[in-house]
Amino acid sequence: MNQRTYQQAPEWEVEQWLNTDRHFSLQSLRGKVIVLEAFQMLCPGCVSHALPQAARLFQMFGQSGVVVLGLHTVFEHHDVMTKEALKVFIHEYRIPFPVGIDTPSGHNKLPLTMAKYGMQGTPTLILIDHLGRLRMQHLGAISDLQLGAEVSKLLVEANMATEENTPPIKSELDSESRHCRIKSSPY
Amino acid sequence: MNQRTYQQAPEWEVEQWLNTDRHFSLQSLRGKVIVLEAFQMLCPGCVSHALPQAARLFQMFGQSGVVVLGLHTVFEHHDVMTKEALKVFIHEYRIPFPVGIDTPSGHNKLPLTMAKYGMQGTPTLILIDHLGRLRMQHLGAISDLQLGAEVSKLLVEANMATEENTPPIKSELDSESRHCRIKSSPY
Amino acid sequence: MNQRTYQQAPEWEVEQWLNTDRHFSLQSLRGKVIVLEAFQMLCPGCVSHALPQAARLFQMFGQSGVVVLGLHTVFEHHDVMTKEALKVFIHEYRIPFPVGIDTPSGHNKLPLTMAKYGMQGTPTLILIDHLGRLRMQHLGAISDLQLGAEVSKLLVEANMATEENTPPIKSELDSESRHCRIKSSPY
Amino acid sequence: MNQRTYQQAPEWEVEQWLNTDRHFSLQSLRGKVIVLEAFQMLCPGCVSHALPQAARLFQMFGQSGVVVLGLHTVFEHHDVMTKEALKVFIHEYRIPFPVGIDTPSGHNKLPLTMAKYGMQGTPTLILIDHLGRLRMQHLGAISDLQLGAEVSKLLVEANMATEENTPPIKSELDSESRHCRIKSSPY
Repeated sequence: MNQRTYQQAPEWEVEQWLNTDRHFSLQSLRGKVIVLEAFQMLCPGCVSHALPQAARLFQMFGQSGVVVLGLHTVFEHHDVMTKEALKVFIHEYRIPFPVGIDTPSGHNKLPLTMAKYGMQGTPTLILIDHLGRLRMQHLGAISDLQLGAEVSKLLVEANMATEENTPPIKSELDSESRHCRIKSSPY
Repeated sequence: MNQRTYQQAPEWEVEQWLNTDRHFSLQSLRGKVIVLEAFQMLCPGCVSHALPQAARLFQMFGQSGVVVLGLHTVFEHHDVMTKEALKVFIHEYRIPFPVGIDTPSGHNKLPLTMAKYGMQGTPTLILIDHLGRLRMQHLGAISDLQLGAEVSKLLVEANMATEENTPPIKSELDSESRHCRIKSSPY
Repeated sequence: MNQRTYQQAPEWEVEQWLNTDRHFSLQSLRGKVIVLEAFQMLCPGCVSHALPQAARLFQMFGQSGVVVLGLHTVFEHHDVMTKEALKVFIHEYRIPFPVGIDTPSGHNKLPLTMAKYGMQGTPTLILIDHLGRLRMQHLGAISDLQLGAEVSKLLVEANMATEENTPPIKSELDSESRHCRIKSSPY
Repeated sequence: MNQRTYQQAPEWEVEQWLNTDRHFSLQSLRGKVIVLEAFQMLCPGCVSHALPQAARLFQMFGQSGVVVLGLHTVFEHHDVMTKEALKVFIHEYRIPFPVGIDTPSGHNKLPLTMAKYGMQGTPTLILIDHLGRLRMQHLGAISDLQLGAEVSKLLVEANMATEENTPPIKSELDSESRHCRIKSSPY
């Protein structure tokens, strides 16, 4: 369907996975749509926008073939954004998805995955399709509307490839207070 | 791709179109993905949530083969939600998309399209695919994440049908203040 | 205490009061702190910001000697912002305080109170102290923090004048989910 | 004016002040209205609500005789919420006011000021009047409207005591987009 040529996403270099018992390699997730949220625990835009958005994605698409992963890409203040601090952060902020620690490459250097992907800061949102191709890499804020659209597109492609129907997206509960209902039958 | 059976959406009954020079029939839009936002101008949930969301959809998908339309389905307070009042509302709230007036059927009765579709109140969001089939009808609030996903899915189906590539969704401007950028090269 | 000279607020000209059985004149409210929210029902900034803020004020200060009143100052689109439409608006948006209709002075003319006060548009927030003096007149948005401060200042002055203690402001319910509580005694 | 009896606020026990060259004791601030925001850098409610609110207070009242101070009261996860981590946090979140570190009393024990005041968690907002009396101690979220009112009340008392006029609160810039202005003179 899509004739554009996309690059294969480079395998990430994760030192350790937190908030999960599993180890996730890019290779092992072939066939899945992957949302990788690269963040730092002391980056305000990550905490206020990107991580809550990734958690919403996880809630909505987590049962539908989309793998949501965090990646802690520390490129500054290495001394305080440690593994132990990250564990507390994940606990206190109730991050619901697995978080990988990007492998450090020395003080004042970028961690390995961050360098491989050429990320320019945090948050960086990365979308990888079922064929392992890098489909989006975005620094900064992105709207829920656009993100929902991009993820859904990759999900349709993935489901077509396996000749399955698109599984339904988990529907939210309706907020009863936000509509005007017909009070009595007008007939 | 999708083996589920969907009903054809009934043709709507619009008395007059505002905010446009055109007349839109469901029939004439075959091949397009349609988002129909049924609302009342004095329904708080419509004003605070549904119409701003439809405007965001219009901004993001309006150039990508999605037709966003409002439908003013007055089922209460007919005397004050008149065509003239609606015109002022559209102007003051800067509604960017065409708005149809659902044909009234008499005092204390549902307007015709509302009755045909079995809508239970406002806002009701309706999604129709490129084959004219009713794919979603939702009373009340829905999140941007889910709506973006649903619209995107229909858009992929439409584009596959015409053997075109998916046109890119219009990207938003990045909010510069919401990320942590690498200050100097760490290399 | 306050040596600055303030002007007396002009008596308002209200054609009819809605959402109440009483008639409010400025004269009859001497001794009270008055918040007058001038608005139009089809003014987006009034609907999204000013009226919800006035409702919060009413909830918090309504039992503490502050009188919160709306004033419908129609200066455009007179044909559709009628008394009947305003009644529906008050009902649908659940406006909790009395609303006066500013007396019209003819088509394309400002209503009487709006002209007397020299208001430049809507929303305009007006604060009047217990001596009937005009203490603030503000076009557009104002923050909750500033508004709470200004109203509280006038309330302290009013209570000092009557040699009463300041009645406590109605406290909000605490949102249980927004704090980190000590889990077990550390002692 | 106020006949209620209030307790004197206990002197706080601050190990070190950050984000300032000064040392602040409660004693040295007699005559000032004090807002003390007790927080932990990894407490979500502090980061999303309490600290931004304290920063707004600082912007609005900082020139009007109100002293806004943060207090880092670590009662859990002592190993990662260190002084060095706090410095990074203050920098990244652009905290504009001085922050004191509450003196630790040993692992799994409450820091000294937290214990003295009987705080039950974070965020805890503390208001102290110009006479050094504890006027409010609140765990969790509080609205801007209520907080503005409470601070303003204490400010009026302080200014009366010094026989000065109330200094004007710093006014915000008006958001031009949120009102309906009279387009042309209707006269």
